[in-house]
Amino acid sequence: MMNRVVAYSTNATIKILQQPSNPEWIETAIANLDTILLDHSHCERKAAGAAINLMFRYPAHQKLVRQLTAIAQEELSHFDQVNQWLEKRNITLAALNSPPYFAQLKSQVRHPEPDRLIDLLLVLAIIEARSHERLGLIGEYCPDAELAKFYRSLMASEARHYGIYWLLASEYSDRPTVQRRLAELGEYESSILATMHPEPRLHS
Amino acid sequence: MMNRVVAYSTNATIKILQQPSNPEWIETAIANLDTILLDHSHCERKAAGAAINLMFRYPAHQKLVRQLTAIAQEELSHFDQVNQWLEKRNITLAALNSPPYFAQLKSQVRHPEPDRLIDLLLVLAIIEARSHERLGLIGEYCPDAELAKFYRSLMASEARHYGIYWLLASEYSDRPTVQRRLAELGEYESSILATMHPEPRLHS
Repeated sequence: MMNRVVAYSTNATIKILQQPSNPEWIETAIANLDTILLDHSHCERKAAGAAINLMFRYPAHQKLVRQLTAIAQEELSHFDQVNQWLEKRNITLAALNSPPYFAQLKSQVRHPEPDRLIDLLLVLAIIEARSHERLGLIGEYCPDAELAKFYRSLMASEARHYGIYWLLASEYSDRPTVQRRLAELGEYESSILATMHPEPRLHS
Repeated sequence: MMNRVVAYSTNATIKILQQPSNPEWIETAIANLDTILLDHSHCERKAAGAAINLMFRYPAHQKLVRQLTAIAQEELSHFDQVNQWLEKRNITLAALNSPPYFAQLKSQVRHPEPDRLIDLLLVLAIIEARSHERLGLIGEYCPDAELAKFYRSLMASEARHYGIYWLLASEYSDRPTVQRRLAELGEYESSILATMHPEPRLHS
């Protein structure tokens, strides 16, 4: 069903992802849509939590705080919308173990400042960019037209979020340094996804 | 200026707080309004974080998740509003050490379930009830009429929040047990506040 090349998620100015998703990923996702929806709910909650945690770590960074507040609000609104989809499809809200993706990406965050902040922002930019790409794929291939439409409706904010994280990183270092680090982290992210995690997840 | 008895924060059906605030607290707060505003900003962020952390701990508790999502959204919106007040008054967003209040209350949370969940919910109910009382006092005594109005506007949601936390606790145990525990925690909370923390804080 999906033997065409999977679209590349970038926008006009930033290339966040180094590699598009493996076509196997979307086949697995569509074949396990209920698990993906449940995982997606957890991802939205985690995304809100990540934005809030970052504010806890940098409570005096005015611009960061303002923009992360808006992101956290949007993620919570998506979380609520995904949970309504779970109810509609009679999927019970349940714990779900995370794929290694997040911990592996986090392991790349350097400790001294400002590297730490830049890495945290770029890791979040990459996660959002990958979500954007994959929600877009679900929006394209999902057989339930209404659910597909919902997924397409989420894409714009995911793109906005990765743009914000990337721009914030550029506030704390010069752009060439940020771009170099983004490319390194992006390479690493693609290497994680090169081996597909056996459980169907948004980031497997 | 404040020698009348400070109003007691309860609603018609639940008595959450065992003791009203000491009148000294509001005098200190009004004399240090900028610090209180900054602390208030941190409190709203912490309140959003606490709601999200609770969802992380109990990701499969459908009703809890739904209601905490709404609370976290509202807290973030208040956080944003308080931060706008900081800007308006040229108060720089800065870290501020927490009063011992939160850690002391948290130390009372029992470990085995469902006690843990009930205690976490009741501790949050008490914190919200105390915030409700104290925001109300600021709304009453603040010399800046516009800021006073803002504080009064927040009171209704704080009251709603403590009601929700209390009702959620009643979902996981019978009401007399919840009431007994609430009274114990409420006594403890009053005992913390009996000795005023030397730094001006919302919960000092």
